[in-house]
Amino acid sequence: MDENLIKEIISDIKLREERSKIPVPAGVSNRHVHLTEKDFTALFGPSCKPTLYRKIVQPGFFACNEKVDIETPKGKFKGVRMIGPCRDYTQIEISLSDARVLGLNPPIRDSGKIENSPGIKIIGPAGEIEVKKGVIISKRHIHFSPQDALKFKIKDQQTVRVLCSAGTDKETIYESVLCRVSDKYALEFHLDTDEANAAAVKTGDPVFIV
Amino acid sequence: MDENLIKEIISDIKLREERSKIPVPAGVSNRHVHLTEKDFTALFGPSCKPTLYRKIVQPGFFACNEKVDIETPKGKFKGVRMIGPCRDYTQIEISLSDARVLGLNPPIRDSGKIENSPGIKIIGPAGEIEVKKGVIISKRHIHFSPQDALKFKIKDQQTVRVLCSAGTDKETIYESVLCRVSDKYALEFHLDTDEANAAAVKTGDPVFIV
Repeated sequence: MDENLIKEIISDIKLREERSKIPVPAGVSNRHVHLTEKDFTALFGPSCKPTLYRKIVQPGFFACNEKVDIETPKGKFKGVRMIGPCRDYTQIEISLSDARVLGLNPPIRDSGKIENSPGIKIIGPAGEIEVKKGVIISKRHIHFSPQDALKFKIKDQQTVRVLCSAGTDKETIYESVLCRVSDKYALEFHLDTDEANAAAVKTGDPVFIV
Repeated sequence: MDENLIKEIISDIKLREERSKIPVPAGVSNRHVHLTEKDFTALFGPSCKPTLYRKIVQPGFFACNEKVDIETPKGKFKGVRMIGPCRDYTQIEISLSDARVLGLNPPIRDSGKIENSPGIKIIGPAGEIEVKKGVIISKRHIHFSPQDALKFKIKDQQTVRVLCSAGTDKETIYESVLCRVSDKYALEFHLDTDEANAAAVKTGDPVFIV
């Protein structure tokens, strides 16, 4: 047998074992919107600014008090929360269940990649807009700070498998989970409400990279 | 090294390889109710019988035209379909998402095990009833005919892992999937709408025991 290959395999097994002992907190994303300043103004009026409902784990971001309705000819969701601050593109993140209700077929994407995604009508207290694109299903991902990435021996854009609710009736492994490393991030596994409920995961629950 | 152990491991690997090549069709269960004759009569009236909406994969069972509303102080779902024929217990099968809407904490169970499960109000066109128990989240499971069980080398009550949507952004492995073997069954992996949407699985899609 090839001794180097065996060493490589053993070192890989050790790495996976070490990694799988460190918990990653889960963060469940309900459907939400990100808005440009222009779209925010059209929906909430010229004198308004997004206001803090509560901070979220990712530094600098916050759930806003401001909510909108989103609507297609086939369905509607009321009271969809904005995540602030404003950004330079408007993006609507929904789950596959939501997509079925709305009759849309959005791509599964990383945040920010909204080319060739469906549009939708957004309704606010001061007005409504029709965006031509921006509806996506967020691809499962983990945010790492550079320090966390070192600890887990993870590189930016690597994909991993994530074990949820081990030892329970809802035990699930999510494959193809994208790792994103940035000094703007805090350690967190982001999944949508379908994925959270399929695996009985709540925000803050520990999951494991296996 | 122990030669018998090695043989055992290799034979297990071979079995898993063979098994993982045979597709199992998925069957997605939306929230639904099973009703006793007595409860059916209370809800739909004394001269009514459950009527065929469409046959389902499991022999002898059918989706009915008859629908009910289910309600708690916290939430309500309208138009929940009955699966016929009537059986000797009333059971309400919902997803974890549904449970959150209804403010219930039902156990994750095999069909028929309804002891110590929450009750609910059921509303039909001819009357309403309050059942004391019967709300469950159905545990993921696979139905096998005895012939299929032989083909897959599966025993009744064994648990397996099921790979869904391999090679896609929604690739998921459901662990702890219960195998149920009976000559009344046809081969089918049953999962609920949370699980189906988390893994982008539709009824009829092939999944694999891995």
